[in-house]
Amino acid sequence: MNGAKSLVKTLLNAGVDTCFSNPGTSEMHFVAALDQIPGMHCVLGLQENIVTGMADGYFRIAGKPACTLLHCGPGLSNGLANLHNARRAYSGMVNIVGDQATYHRPLDAPLTADTEALARTASSWVRTSSRAQDVGRDAAVAVQAACTAGQIATLILPSDTSWDEGGIVAEPLTVPQPAGVDPSVVEHAASALRSSKNVLILLGGRRVSLDIQAVAWRIAQTCGAALMTDYTTAQVARGRGRVQLERVPYGIDAAVEKLRRFEHIVLVGVKPPVGFFAYPGKPAFKYQEQAQLHLLARPDQNSLAALESLADALSVGSVPIPDPGERPEPASGAPTPEGLARTLAALMPEEAIVADESVSYGRGFYPHTYAAPAHDWLHTVGGAIGNGMPLATGAAIGAGKQRRVINLQADGSGMYTLQSLWTQAREQLPVTTIILNNNKYNILIGEYKGVGAEPGPTAMSMLDLSNPGLSWVHLANGMGVEAQRATTMEQCADLMASSYSRAGPFLIELMI
Amino acid sequence: MNGAKSLVKTLLNAGVDTCFSNPGTSEMHFVAALDQIPGMHCVLGLQENIVTGMADGYFRIAGKPACTLLHCGPGLSNGLANLHNARRAYSGMVNIVGDQATYHRPLDAPLTADTEALARTASSWVRTSSRAQDVGRDAAVAVQAACTAGQIATLILPSDTSWDEGGIVAEPLTVPQPAGVDPSVVEHAASALRSSKNVLILLGGRRVSLDIQAVAWRIAQTCGAALMTDYTTAQVARGRGRVQLERVPYGIDAAVEKLRRFEHIVLVGVKPPVGFFAYPGKPAFKYQEQAQLHLLARPDQNSLAALESLADALSVGSVPIPDPGERPEPASGAPTPEGLARTLAALMPEEAIVADESVSYGRGFYPHTYAAPAHDWLHTVGGAIGNGMPLATGAAIGAGKQRRVINLQADGSGMYTLQSLWTQAREQLPVTTIILNNNKYNILIGEYKGVGAEPGPTAMSMLDLSNPGLSWVHLANGMGVEAQRATTMEQCADLMASSYSRAGPFLIELMI
Repeated sequence: MNGAKSLVKTLLNAGVDTCFSNPGTSEMHFVAALDQIPGMHCVLGLQENIVTGMADGYFRIAGKPACTLLHCGPGLSNGLANLHNARRAYSGMVNIVGDQATYHRPLDAPLTADTEALARTASSWVRTSSRAQDVGRDAAVAVQAACTAGQIATLILPSDTSWDEGGIVAEPLTVPQPAGVDPSVVEHAASALRSSKNVLILLGGRRVSLDIQAVAWRIAQTCGAALMTDYTTAQVARGRGRVQLERVPYGIDAAVEKLRRFEHIVLVGVKPPVGFFAYPGKPAFKYQEQAQLHLLARPDQNSLAALESLADALSVGSVPIPDPGERPEPASGAPTPEGLARTLAALMPEEAIVADESVSYGRGFYPHTYAAPAHDWLHTVGGAIGNGMPLATGAAIGAGKQRRVINLQADGSGMYTLQSLWTQAREQLPVTTIILNNNKYNILIGEYKGVGAEPGPTAMSMLDLSNPGLSWVHLANGMGVEAQRATTMEQCADLMASSYSRAGPFLIELMI
Repeated sequence: MNGAKSLVKTLLNAGVDTCFSNPGTSEMHFVAALDQIPGMHCVLGLQENIVTGMADGYFRIAGKPACTLLHCGPGLSNGLANLHNARRAYSGMVNIVGDQATYHRPLDAPLTADTEALARTASSWVRTSSRAQDVGRDAAVAVQAACTAGQIATLILPSDTSWDEGGIVAEPLTVPQPAGVDPSVVEHAASALRSSKNVLILLGGRRVSLDIQAVAWRIAQTCGAALMTDYTTAQVARGRGRVQLERVPYGIDAAVEKLRRFEHIVLVGVKPPVGFFAYPGKPAFKYQEQAQLHLLARPDQNSLAALESLADALSVGSVPIPDPGERPEPASGAPTPEGLARTLAALMPEEAIVADESVSYGRGFYPHTYAAPAHDWLHTVGGAIGNGMPLATGAAIGAGKQRRVINLQADGSGMYTLQSLWTQAREQLPVTTIILNNNKYNILIGEYKGVGAEPGPTAMSMLDLSNPGLSWVHLANGMGVEAQRATTMEQCADLMASSYSRAGPFLIELMI
């Protein structure tokens, strides 16, 4: 068997059964192996940032890595921004990157690039196989790496390692358990919770599940501590039956104001919160620099086990999660952020997935959606725009098309990866995209004003998207996705509701 | 003055007056400086691969570098594939990449990445300024690098180097002259041309101008040598009054067949031609390995001067460039590659620019367009797809909107950077895009068959684009570009002709 076949069999053995791909010439033997060996669901993306973003969304919902298939250094380059986002979200995946044959590389053919250097910028694990015999073994190690704390693993395969005979299928490798929690850290945190009323328990990292929330809530309520989730959390279980978690604000001023009073911060699966950017004369940290930080669990540790140890140390009893009250009614009139959030909560089906790249418009969505049915909310945490649409697409596949995905999507960011819509149509995925069309990079206009001036014509030529205005209805139709424009919340609500009863995708262009 | 203002003034002083941009928060002080200091034409692209591809097209036609403005490591990542293409085309540009403030970088905020490592993969020159005082000086060196043999220069600016006071405007630096030609190489090539009838003069590199062709033609005709241009040539002066140059084929079998007889190859501005990829059991080189290579001019040397020295050594006289014969008539009936090429030649306006990413469909366009009016033909040489549409957009700006740009664009590659159409509408650029819609990655289906099998359903799920079919008319309309579909050559000809009389862009979706 050739190297490519040993690769496919090794991946399938290890439970990797979904391949997001955009192949090229150097991957043709892998494509042939996928064709000949049944078991891999292959999903085409029309540009590589769609491919890697889909693998991110898939991991978050399926809870296991997919593989991607990318073409040489430039193909990998195209997918790096969403690899960056996936890395920040702790979403594991195995990237298979085809490359020049070992003996062709020295000739510096046009597509030759420093593929390893590119891979290293966004991967925790990188290896280039050097012969067909090694491909199976290397793939097994790649899957192990991807399953360990959600790492990006990139395996580079020179084309002769795919087509040469001698491939050996490798057995799956054991995934190491996360490191245990240090009892002295637990005791230190418990002591802070016993002695101070200004303690924040901050949840974050890959996934703030109901289990994690429930234990954290018991601790917080018993000790009088505050409980929040970080702005950079990848996935939060939300809605009825879950804790009404507040999110640390994005903006440095609002965040500092919110976290000012805390003398202790217990970090659960999350790093200390800092500003996305520095600003002249403003603090870099979102918390008081004098605050004591208790790193109860690193992102690669078991947050739930750590919280349970803490609850035991504090002997906290059972505390029910409060009811969020009445489900809101859909909003009417002109679109507003609050109205959209309320309408979302009013109409959302059970177990929906929200893929949120609403950027500036969506910062206040949380409080109005506590009384929605139980759902999962996915954030784009790495800050590289163009994450939302591929994330929604991959999440729908990760859920086996059994859950509705609602993509709250800013227009400027959406234009980065609009090709996602085509894959949604091809795979008939249950995704409702709500484009927030304001015809501008609104977040940047806000940032520009922070510089101390109103933007003039040259600045606006780089911040405004209204000349010409984008028609997302046309763009969606061009890729086989039905779409309609809404200018009122009533129209938006009608379109939302009808989209939820469809099997396939639908796009609502909400003029805000 | 702050660092950002010193940057803008230094760039303008050095003649860099066009900025292709997609800024973010860390670039806001640069945007403000551009707003406050007149003289820079700022052109927004909706994704960074559009931005870098436009800078490539601009350089090829304007003959001088533009700057780009990119946001942090991920923004640079998005533009890397077209930086790869630009590097292979010897298109100089100055990338300005904003990044985390020097003191914020250690905090590993979400957008933090190894920006220098990313830049190095596609740049010849990389520098990170460390204080406002250095920004002007560093920018002057970056422009010098970009002007020297068409290098990619990337200047990374931590945001505090932009906003801090102390900026110093730098004077432009002298651009070094290309290295002279080695007389012994000239003599060696002359000796081969005198003694052998199996000599190929191969022209290539950044630009095969009329001047270069005319001297090469005199030499070839006088000595009985063959004259061709390489497949990887970035820009070829073509049409009436120019030499009817044949292009080295893309495919390894056809190329080997074509170059088999040559015992000597005189390389003018071009590297030895090798296959884009290796294939099992096939040669890696397009020429006979026994052939003697004469590197008359490296890509960074002066090809014209080298050829003139060779002509002098051979004492060749004047030889007129032959007339290409009658201009073809537009084709009729079903679209064919030959029919499209003939129609193109029949209707093309004087001094048009062809931006060619026709991939497999366009490999035979050359012979049918020799009798077109004088024009420049731009190839995408780095092999990273998604080059054509940004190249066309930037070329139109590089020509000051004074020349018609015709973008021959494969559909699969076009989907990589379709956002280019929006910039064409915004800037009202005279670009006619002809989408070759075959609803598949046809080149890859050919490559797959080379593996030795017909693609089955899984393979076709990664090679076919017909489910759903793309509507480029809708896509173009969504970005403010008028468009129409053509299914016959008559319709295509009518749409071409009417598009040429417009001031702005138009898209023809040719169903092939």
